[in-house]
Amino acid sequence: MMDKWYRTVGKHGDVVMSTRIRLARNLEHRPFPRFLSKEQRQEIVEAVKDAAAAISGLPLHFVDVATLPERERLALVERHLISFELANAPEGSGLLLSEDERVSVMINEEDHVRIQVMSAGLDLEGAYALADQVDSALGEKLHFAYDERLGFLTACPTNLGTGMRASLMLHLPALEEQGAIQTLENTVSKLGLTIRGSYGEGTRPHGALYQMSNQVTLGISEKAAIENLNGIAVQIMKQEISMRQRLFTQPEFEDHAWRSLGVLQTARILTYEEALRFLSTVRIAAAGGVLPSPTIETVTALMSDIQPGCLMTAAGEDMPPQIRDRRRAAMVRAALGRAE
Amino acid sequence: MMDKWYRTVGKHGDVVMSTRIRLARNLEHRPFPRFLSKEQRQEIVEAVKDAAAAISGLPLHFVDVATLPERERLALVERHLISFELANAPEGSGLLLSEDERVSVMINEEDHVRIQVMSAGLDLEGAYALADQVDSALGEKLHFAYDERLGFLTACPTNLGTGMRASLMLHLPALEEQGAIQTLENTVSKLGLTIRGSYGEGTRPHGALYQMSNQVTLGISEKAAIENLNGIAVQIMKQEISMRQRLFTQPEFEDHAWRSLGVLQTARILTYEEALRFLSTVRIAAAGGVLPSPTIETVTALMSDIQPGCLMTAAGEDMPPQIRDRRRAAMVRAALGRAE
Repeated sequence: MMDKWYRTVGKHGDVVMSTRIRLARNLEHRPFPRFLSKEQRQEIVEAVKDAAAAISGLPLHFVDVATLPERERLALVERHLISFELANAPEGSGLLLSEDERVSVMINEEDHVRIQVMSAGLDLEGAYALADQVDSALGEKLHFAYDERLGFLTACPTNLGTGMRASLMLHLPALEEQGAIQTLENTVSKLGLTIRGSYGEGTRPHGALYQMSNQVTLGISEKAAIENLNGIAVQIMKQEISMRQRLFTQPEFEDHAWRSLGVLQTARILTYEEALRFLSTVRIAAAGGVLPSPTIETVTALMSDIQPGCLMTAAGEDMPPQIRDRRRAAMVRAALGRAE
Repeated sequence: MMDKWYRTVGKHGDVVMSTRIRLARNLEHRPFPRFLSKEQRQEIVEAVKDAAAAISGLPLHFVDVATLPERERLALVERHLISFELANAPEGSGLLLSEDERVSVMINEEDHVRIQVMSAGLDLEGAYALADQVDSALGEKLHFAYDERLGFLTACPTNLGTGMRASLMLHLPALEEQGAIQTLENTVSKLGLTIRGSYGEGTRPHGALYQMSNQVTLGISEKAAIENLNGIAVQIMKQEISMRQRLFTQPEFEDHAWRSLGVLQTARILTYEEALRFLSTVRIAAAGGVLPSPTIETVTALMSDIQPGCLMTAAGEDMPPQIRDRRRAAMVRAALGRAE
């Protein structure tokens, strides 16, 4: 089995957890998904599946989201492979997925086609190149709706133009600790970007994970949008690293990091929020050499695996929250080397 | 070197940390210490030293408290071998101490002679027998002031009669958690006993350690006073054990116990109060089988060794609180088996 992309740590992985490129596309001469009948939706699912099957060198398997148990749909949302909306109303929709889960294509979500490429670390160019390749291959067969003046046509006008949303998942515990996130939000919004908690607007970020995305899709090339995002990300990275260096000199932080590891290695009950909070501290301490172990890869994989849906999917059964919290604690202990 | 008594765990050691018997005695035809000149005080010190030297089979070495560095005087107070008063005004006073620190004799504290015997666990009869033996041996030479009607004469009328204070150091985390200590205080006070935090009246108990003593010394024999204290201690023990059994069935307690151990095994900074709180939880969890380790002996020894004066005395140097907190954390990690 191929390694999932989210079990690896990429370039600048100490601050940038992952890169995501999403392209919104629609088929010519067809109404947007919300105006389609069940039969019409099914036709589009089949057309996209056929087009995907023809891509050479990139096998994508079809996932019929509607037939999955709720826990597996939740796991797909947690791993950012489908949206909440698709998970909750999966009839006449579908998902195409590569073995390593880097490439996914949502069919009949808001748009007919949503191509997504995920990559570990800061890898906007790499992820875009792969997304562009999938886009071209699918577009050859499907003929995407495109206007010479406006660009790609999308169900929501905020995506019109490139149809591209480029996002970086940033781990910013030191900036968060300094209370610097609000200032950051204000600054990047003036630069055509947005920063929000890892599960989108209105949700409170856990584990100091923030998603930064481009906002502008019209009147700007993909290349320019990516360069803009990349440049600002590099600046934020520098600020975060500089704040961390200051933290690392404090005996209190060393103590806090060790205790966080100690609790993770011994706790019998761990909620997701609490585990993520401790892992967030352990992650920067391990990356900065304050803790000799665990590896940043181990912590990064855990931050994904301990999510409720991922946990239940791995166990192959539904579990009430109390049982999940015990299972999560056991998983964390096993991964961090104290399974007694 | 003989093992110190406080490194062992005695009968019912899961609840009763230690037993203490103290006998207040004064020499005939001499004013109480506070009315003595420096020379007179010195005479008494010499007389008691001579009398102690004649006790066969129980070598007591003399400690000139006035010449000790402050940290060592503090350590003697922490191990209940001398009082705060003697530590702070040690001129013309002294201490006789057995190698295992079970037997100590304070000279010229409030009374001319204060014989004390400490014992691990619940051991009132054993401790009293040894105190009685020391009392008889010293009394042969020193001729203690005794009134046929009143009994032993003492500087403070609350000690008049037997001059005996019998105390048990109880570890009552489960009763404390249930908020049952206040009720217990009220109950035992009606039975001629008193319960208070481990460092005497007015101080807040740390680590759920409570000292229970007899209050009445007049019109009651030593034997009766000890039997009364013993009987009530057995009842409190049963209550504490029963409350613990209830705690042990709660998954939250298991989690709390493991986390407490995890923090002790990893923390880089530990105040005395915090360390004692975690050790208190670990002690009952280890005694009750909720944790497979450490041994109750290890925890009990630590609870004594981590006190500020004991810590500095072991290190052989004075340390400011921040340094002590780091040293304490290192000592705890080493003792609990994770020294990395």
